[in-house]
Amino acid sequence: MKVLIVHAHYEPQSFNTALKDLAVETLTGAGHEVRVSDLYAMNWNPVASAADFAAPSNPDYCVYALEQRKAFESGALAADIQGELDKVEWCDLLILNFPIFWFSVPAILKGWIDRVFVSGRFYGGKRIYDKGGMSGKKAMTTLTLGGQNHMFGPNAIHGEMDVLLRPILRGALAYCGFAVLPPHVAYHVPYVSPEARQMMLQYYRKRLLTIDQATPLIFPRMEDFDEKLYPKVSQEIVR
Amino acid sequence: MKVLIVHAHYEPQSFNTALKDLAVETLTGAGHEVRVSDLYAMNWNPVASAADFAAPSNPDYCVYALEQRKAFESGALAADIQGELDKVEWCDLLILNFPIFWFSVPAILKGWIDRVFVSGRFYGGKRIYDKGGMSGKKAMTTLTLGGQNHMFGPNAIHGEMDVLLRPILRGALAYCGFAVLPPHVAYHVPYVSPEARQMMLQYYRKRLLTIDQATPLIFPRMEDFDEKLYPKVSQEIVR
Repeated sequence: MKVLIVHAHYEPQSFNTALKDLAVETLTGAGHEVRVSDLYAMNWNPVASAADFAAPSNPDYCVYALEQRKAFESGALAADIQGELDKVEWCDLLILNFPIFWFSVPAILKGWIDRVFVSGRFYGGKRIYDKGGMSGKKAMTTLTLGGQNHMFGPNAIHGEMDVLLRPILRGALAYCGFAVLPPHVAYHVPYVSPEARQMMLQYYRKRLLTIDQATPLIFPRMEDFDEKLYPKVSQEIVR
Repeated sequence: MKVLIVHAHYEPQSFNTALKDLAVETLTGAGHEVRVSDLYAMNWNPVASAADFAAPSNPDYCVYALEQRKAFESGALAADIQGELDKVEWCDLLILNFPIFWFSVPAILKGWIDRVFVSGRFYGGKRIYDKGGMSGKKAMTTLTLGGQNHMFGPNAIHGEMDVLLRPILRGALAYCGFAVLPPHVAYHVPYVSPEARQMMLQYYRKRLLTIDQATPLIFPRMEDFDEKLYPKVSQEIVR
């Protein structure tokens, strides 16, 4: 597989960065091709704005998604956005590697999604979910946090992790057609012993070695919705 | 009340910006004091990094939340962060006014939360949820999106809006002690008629005029959890 890792941690010595480095080493060793976008090292600009369009179709009123679509169609995307888009086009598997900030991605990674997931290529009209522009590719999230496992779940203080991650897993990745693999979550990271850290790295390594056999999560399918996106039958959608 | 509106739209002519302007006018007219942080106009830096700490306690290994806490305690926060913190300290009601990007806040607003919600003041240890640092203050989200109302709900294609907003409503605002008012959601914004826009503005105006009587949403209470944050009794937590 061709694997793109988008990495969003500011500290080279962090456990989060160690997970990124381990993935590069493990996946390369297993015969995959790996590229990395290290957003902090790249000084990635996360702010989606009219400044992204050198020749906007409407210079007086910016509708970001509309300008994205037109710039994509005419090959006029900003160079930094086009560079990241090319990497996503190249890859079979996208891994987002990040520390949880406020039960979500850090702003620098949010802005990678905001700017790179361009309308017209990643999605458009009813080309969403299993009909999304990235269908055929896989995506995984690898995340670290300070909280402990027991703080997440239906009765737990912070609620269910998969629900907290829904805007990323379903709202961004699955929406664009990626087959989304179960997230890899490392809990309690700042507080674990060196021995536990080694075990956590080994656990991730094992998971990476069988990544091409992992079963994706289930998300909405367009065939279950009508022309106006009403559900065809009342049903409980999974996630 | 003293009201701080944090505004995160790049287009001055947008409906989203019209909601912000209407809130300033309506709340001022009703006798409240209003301040605005217009993040795009301020050229807000959303990237949390070691560069935020001029004199870090550990220059060789940055743990962001730890450095935040120490910088807060010693009065050494970066000037842009301290400026926003002062505004939050001043306000009784915080309004986050933003367009939905990928079922979440735009990166520029995510980075306002990442950098301004400092450890040691907004939260710390078990000072979270109803014991959070901002308890006594209220918060509301006002958001615009392209999707239609019927696309959100338990059986709808994108799932429940309050679940999609959970990382913001519960994970950021309620976590820090804010009493979180129900979100104000404007659907289908790019496609509505001028008449519908006027009705939507009137509806928001009415809501703002009774904002001090709105009932907050229900979130976890610390008394329901033990010292290690396990639930004292198995229970379905609301949201």
